[in-house]
Amino acid sequence: MALKVHGSPVSTCTARVLACAYEKEVDVELVSVNLQGGQHKSPEYLASKNPFGQIPAFEDGDLTLFESRAISRYVAKKYKSQGTDLLREADPKEAAAVEVWMEVESQNYNPPITALVSELIFKPVFGLPTDEEAVKSQSEKLGKVLDVYEARLSKSKYLAGDFITLADLFHVGYTYYLMKTPKKELLNSRPHVKAWWEDLLSRPAVQKAVSGMVLGN
Amino acid sequence: MALKVHGSPVSTCTARVLACAYEKEVDVELVSVNLQGGQHKSPEYLASKNPFGQIPAFEDGDLTLFESRAISRYVAKKYKSQGTDLLREADPKEAAAVEVWMEVESQNYNPPITALVSELIFKPVFGLPTDEEAVKSQSEKLGKVLDVYEARLSKSKYLAGDFITLADLFHVGYTYYLMKTPKKELLNSRPHVKAWWEDLLSRPAVQKAVSGMVLGN
Repeated sequence: MALKVHGSPVSTCTARVLACAYEKEVDVELVSVNLQGGQHKSPEYLASKNPFGQIPAFEDGDLTLFESRAISRYVAKKYKSQGTDLLREADPKEAAAVEVWMEVESQNYNPPITALVSELIFKPVFGLPTDEEAVKSQSEKLGKVLDVYEARLSKSKYLAGDFITLADLFHVGYTYYLMKTPKKELLNSRPHVKAWWEDLLSRPAVQKAVSGMVLGN
Repeated sequence: MALKVHGSPVSTCTARVLACAYEKEVDVELVSVNLQGGQHKSPEYLASKNPFGQIPAFEDGDLTLFESRAISRYVAKKYKSQGTDLLREADPKEAAAVEVWMEVESQNYNPPITALVSELIFKPVFGLPTDEEAVKSQSEKLGKVLDVYEARLSKSKYLAGDFITLADLFHVGYTYYLMKTPKKELLNSRPHVKAWWEDLLSRPAVQKAVSGMVLGN
C-alpha cells in the first residue's frame, strides 16, 4: 500500500517530503488538499491530519504524521536499506553532522528564505504588495547564512560531508521558488553554493519533487 | 572524559542541552563563553566551534557540534541505554511521534516564545524598550499553539505520549523565562499545559538545567 502525502504539488513543504521519498525510492501517493477551499482548516482535517491546519500530512497505514521534516525523517529511517542513505546512521559522526545541518536549515536558513518567498512569490499570487523593506532585511540575513554555506561547501560537496543527505534535501522547496526571483543572485553569486544547488536540482528525485511547483512562473 | 558544552548558564539553548544531558545521566562540563566580551563572534570561536557565532557548541573528544537540538539528539542517541529513554527508538510509531512534536516545538512554539522572551526578558536586561505591539501579536500566536497543546495534553501526559521525551525537554529554556513574566498566564490558563509544565519543572534534571537562568529576576 502506497504511503499517502496529503499536500499540494505547489507547496514547498510538500516538495520536501516528496524529494525525500523519491530519493528513498518509496512509492507515495500525493493526495491533493484543497487549500483554496480551506480544507486544511476544516474540522475533519484538524482532527485527523494536522491540528495546526498546515500541509503536508502523511499516512502510513493507521499512522498519521505531520511536519514535513518529521515525515521525511520517518521515511528515511523506515526505508533506510533502500535508495539514497540520507541519515548516515552507520557512522555516528556523519549522522551527527547531518543532524547539525538539518538544524541549520531549520533555524538559520528557513526563516529568511520563507519570508523572501512569501514576499516575492506568494504575495503576488494573491495580489498583495511586496514589502520591499522586508525583502531587503531578509536578503541581508539570508546572505549572511549563505556566507557560512559558501565556506562550508568549499570544503565538502554537500552540507554534512561529501555525500548528499536529508540536510541538503530539506532546502529544496523554498530554494526552488527563490531561484525564480531576482534574489537568485544570493545563491548564484557564491560559486560553491551555486554548484551545490545545481547539483541538487539535477537529481531525478528532486526534479520530480519540484515538477508541480508552478507558482512564480 | 567529560563532554564539553560551550555556553552560558543563563542561556535558553544551553539549558536545552543540559536538560537532555542530565536526563541521560551524562557527565558534562559547562565551559563559559564570554558573551559580553563577544567571544562567540571571535575568529577562533567561529572557526572551531560554530560558524554562525551562537551558543551552545559541544565537544566530544575530537567531534565538535553546534545547534542545541542537534547536540541534544546526539547525546540522546549516543547514551540511549542509560538514563531516560528520550527518543523511544524501540517503537517506530513512538519515535515518529517524538519527531513530530520536536518539529512542532521548533517550527510552531519556538518562534513566538523566542520573540516574547526577547521582548520581556532580554530587552529589559539591555535597557531596551519592550515593543508592546510585538508582545500582543506574538502572545496571540503562542496562544493558538497552546490551544493545540492543551487538546493534545488532555489525551496524553506528555507531547509524544505518556512518556517524557526530547520533544518535551526542548521547551524548557524559553518556557522557564516566559514563566517569570506576566505572560505565564498563557500557560497557566490552560490546565493541562500548566500541569505538563509543572511536571517538567519538578524533574531534578530540569531543575539543575535551569538553575543558572537568573535573568528576569
